[in-house]
Amino acid sequence: MDASNWFSDAKLDAQSSEPLYQQIADMIIKKIRHHVLAPGTKLPPERELAALFDVSRTTAINAYRALERQGWVRTRVGSGTYVERHATDNGGRREADEFKGAAPLMPWMELFAARPQSPLSTILRDLVAAPLAEDNIALAAGMADPNTFPIATMQRLFAEQAGETAPSDFGHIPTEGYGPLRHAIATGLAVKGIDVTGEQVMTFAGSQNGLYLLARVMLEPGDYVIVEAPTFIGAVQVFQGAGARLLSLPVSEGLDLALLEDYLIRYRPKFFYINPTFHNPTGRVLSERLRRDLLEVAARYRLVIVEDDAYSELFYHQPPPPPLKAADGYGGVVYLNTFSKLLFPGLRVGYLAASPTLINRLALEKQYIDLHTSNISQWLLHGYLKSGELPGHANRVRALYKKRRDALAQALRQYCGNDLSFSIPDGGFYLWCRIEGPLTARDLLHEAIKGGVSFVPGDAFYRTPEMGGQQFRLCFTTHPEPLLAEAARRIGDTLRRMTKTRRPAAGSVAVQPII
Amino acid sequence: MDASNWFSDAKLDAQSSEPLYQQIADMIIKKIRHHVLAPGTKLPPERELAALFDVSRTTAINAYRALERQGWVRTRVGSGTYVERHATDNGGRREADEFKGAAPLMPWMELFAARPQSPLSTILRDLVAAPLAEDNIALAAGMADPNTFPIATMQRLFAEQAGETAPSDFGHIPTEGYGPLRHAIATGLAVKGIDVTGEQVMTFAGSQNGLYLLARVMLEPGDYVIVEAPTFIGAVQVFQGAGARLLSLPVSEGLDLALLEDYLIRYRPKFFYINPTFHNPTGRVLSERLRRDLLEVAARYRLVIVEDDAYSELFYHQPPPPPLKAADGYGGVVYLNTFSKLLFPGLRVGYLAASPTLINRLALEKQYIDLHTSNISQWLLHGYLKSGELPGHANRVRALYKKRRDALAQALRQYCGNDLSFSIPDGGFYLWCRIEGPLTARDLLHEAIKGGVSFVPGDAFYRTPEMGGQQFRLCFTTHPEPLLAEAARRIGDTLRRMTKTRRPAAGSVAVQPII
Repeated sequence: MDASNWFSDAKLDAQSSEPLYQQIADMIIKKIRHHVLAPGTKLPPERELAALFDVSRTTAINAYRALERQGWVRTRVGSGTYVERHATDNGGRREADEFKGAAPLMPWMELFAARPQSPLSTILRDLVAAPLAEDNIALAAGMADPNTFPIATMQRLFAEQAGETAPSDFGHIPTEGYGPLRHAIATGLAVKGIDVTGEQVMTFAGSQNGLYLLARVMLEPGDYVIVEAPTFIGAVQVFQGAGARLLSLPVSEGLDLALLEDYLIRYRPKFFYINPTFHNPTGRVLSERLRRDLLEVAARYRLVIVEDDAYSELFYHQPPPPPLKAADGYGGVVYLNTFSKLLFPGLRVGYLAASPTLINRLALEKQYIDLHTSNISQWLLHGYLKSGELPGHANRVRALYKKRRDALAQALRQYCGNDLSFSIPDGGFYLWCRIEGPLTARDLLHEAIKGGVSFVPGDAFYRTPEMGGQQFRLCFTTHPEPLLAEAARRIGDTLRRMTKTRRPAAGSVAVQPII
Repeated sequence: MDASNWFSDAKLDAQSSEPLYQQIADMIIKKIRHHVLAPGTKLPPERELAALFDVSRTTAINAYRALERQGWVRTRVGSGTYVERHATDNGGRREADEFKGAAPLMPWMELFAARPQSPLSTILRDLVAAPLAEDNIALAAGMADPNTFPIATMQRLFAEQAGETAPSDFGHIPTEGYGPLRHAIATGLAVKGIDVTGEQVMTFAGSQNGLYLLARVMLEPGDYVIVEAPTFIGAVQVFQGAGARLLSLPVSEGLDLALLEDYLIRYRPKFFYINPTFHNPTGRVLSERLRRDLLEVAARYRLVIVEDDAYSELFYHQPPPPPLKAADGYGGVVYLNTFSKLLFPGLRVGYLAASPTLINRLALEKQYIDLHTSNISQWLLHGYLKSGELPGHANRVRALYKKRRDALAQALRQYCGNDLSFSIPDGGFYLWCRIEGPLTARDLLHEAIKGGVSFVPGDAFYRTPEMGGQQFRLCFTTHPEPLLAEAARRIGDTLRRMTKTRRPAAGSVAVQPII
């Protein structure tokens, strides 16, 4: 892989007291530490490095010299500069040496399981906590606006309710979740037409934790799983980490039931992971008719449906149709949800509604992972649900996000015109955009980051990264309208500049045999 | 396996308005739901069931009839009563039928991965949240006294500090942990002689979560891991769940370095999991001399040491020697700790101090499991550490637990006399007892539960359950002194009664070939 790609988001600070060569060296060290640049990777030639960062060749040479002095890279005469075999451990050694006598340090990289049990990707981590330039407008992560987080209410509830709770509620609690919260969730689900008891509800640390548990309990290497294409990347990675083979069902206004049946007959998949309402990333809502048809096929083929319903509360017009689980007559729908989108992600509370048999098995697995989810989070959330504050909060964020959705859409039309197409979703967090022209979203992102705006290129939402070249996702909920308008302006500027210079797409590199 | 063993902890409530046969049926349903009684298991004959529960044969027959009516068991004439093949799903069906038209329900038991990815044990879950008789004195779980939990302080801190925090701190944060908490932990570690930066600290959901992550990142099926015998059951189960083969190093006052070297040469183990200070369950403290010797061997053989230090703050005389990590000159010690024992388990915050290379890899894995640990818990804990309340709290619980340790020891001497031996630990949570005589701890527990006291039989702390037959663990921190004395009296009564009747040990059942 071309290492220069890894520096596409790089940005030097000319005002910094740190010399430019050192800034470049630090960026490279970070990529090595984060295993983005693997040991043995060939780094760009000095001339190319200079061009990438728009610095003099001397600066590039000095950056490589500094890295070599510290043991991060090695220059082979006539061949180039390579990441050292034990670069990350040498880095570790320097830290240790500062406070300890020299001793041959542990080669940690060599001690990890040779076959990683999960794909080595930083996509999820980078999405939730990517450090970027200070004035960058991040439309990448799917995050509620932090200013809407009901922290003050939680504060008040904590003060009011802590006395009412038995201290033992802050000790160990059942792995399946905090009892009163499970029952409060079951009560809330009745409003959506899902008729379950607290025993049919399990809580865990965000819906990511639920997806992980489902993968651990249900999947063996080689099992098939159907996913939508595009879909939530966190699910794809967890299923792939369990060794599953993924079958893609394209997302459109409809649902390709013929292809679904073909998959069911051919592959007997373990389950179908679907996000029927305000789909991430496209915003699609499955119609009531299609929901009925899907359930009919699923019941006939005994297909387990994992229904991810993270966005259904965030509707900006009519409430969406009831979840699939509400019409689950065959007991095969696992309903998965989270409080991260409606309240805030720092709670780390997600839940599912499903057969007690499944919940029991998931709990048997969860005990090894963390015994149970934070009582503090579960107890606070229960207090919040009990307080009756949620409906008002939901109404407030719906009104806020609807205005933001419209503001971003309008600004994109103004600044990007016909270079960009998108449709306006009736709910959820995202605008799913397509570049009209040969430019790829990765190339656009490369330049847009320099211009101070970031987003997720569409290929991140596909099982195989070569798809979705022209698409990208913008989250419209995190920032206020003026920032959204400025972000659209920056995207528009970048688009226009790049369309003019007709930079060739980077995706067209041929596979070169190594001889 | 003899199904009657599964009802050894059963206790009927003669005062209840629920008939006895229904109470028995409910207990059996629970065992089936919890997969303790697997589909196809033969249940005890009616006469034996009656004897087990000390009820009439009619009551036993009625219990089985009720179960059969509800589809949980099937009686085969001339053969006996068996758990139904799809009993748990039939249970699910009944629930579903209440609100849905009948439809062939999903056979959930058949959909799970055929080879479970973790051992199917409920030991951990039962320890943290086992429902027992109301007057039972539970000395089983290793839990701080809920009345010491500093909830009121947390309440005040939440009210005072929520305003000082950026709302984005309640959004997504780095997988490695909440930055300010990581730095506060690093500062705290300096007091123990561990010199690390916040980047060398990672937080997670209790030390169980850290053990799970270590197993995921470091272990492949067939890898060797050295554990102490006895040791913490949660660690053993996680390592076995990763397919590791465990090598046992017996716990004594010393440390068998010759056997350790033998293991190192023969098996090249991935790591050695050790709890050097106030060891769970024995209370042993490794001397400074032995710590030096162990580190010398470890550095020479490049052995990774996973040092579980959960109890070192809970000393009742002199502070213990510094952790192994404080003298880690070769970078091979992973220091693992938790706030569950010193503060309260409901926080679900543990941490490790280790090489940034290892932390990076653990975070790559953790992103799939839960993205990151609860911000609410981490933020509250950080506020608590910052407030300077911890040293005072630690002093208070030390004084409290020291008195409890002494009270339990004195009462055991008074009520059990020479039937029980134990030594008094200088810190930690546990008295590790041995029955002097042929009686096994499982048999004692069987009867003691009827008498209203529970504990963990020693074999639960060994890799292979046939060891430790006479030993058991009592936790002395959860309850006040009068309850501890009463617990000792109940154990003493049970011991005396059983020693008199000379009940044969149940462990001596010969293996019967199935023909």
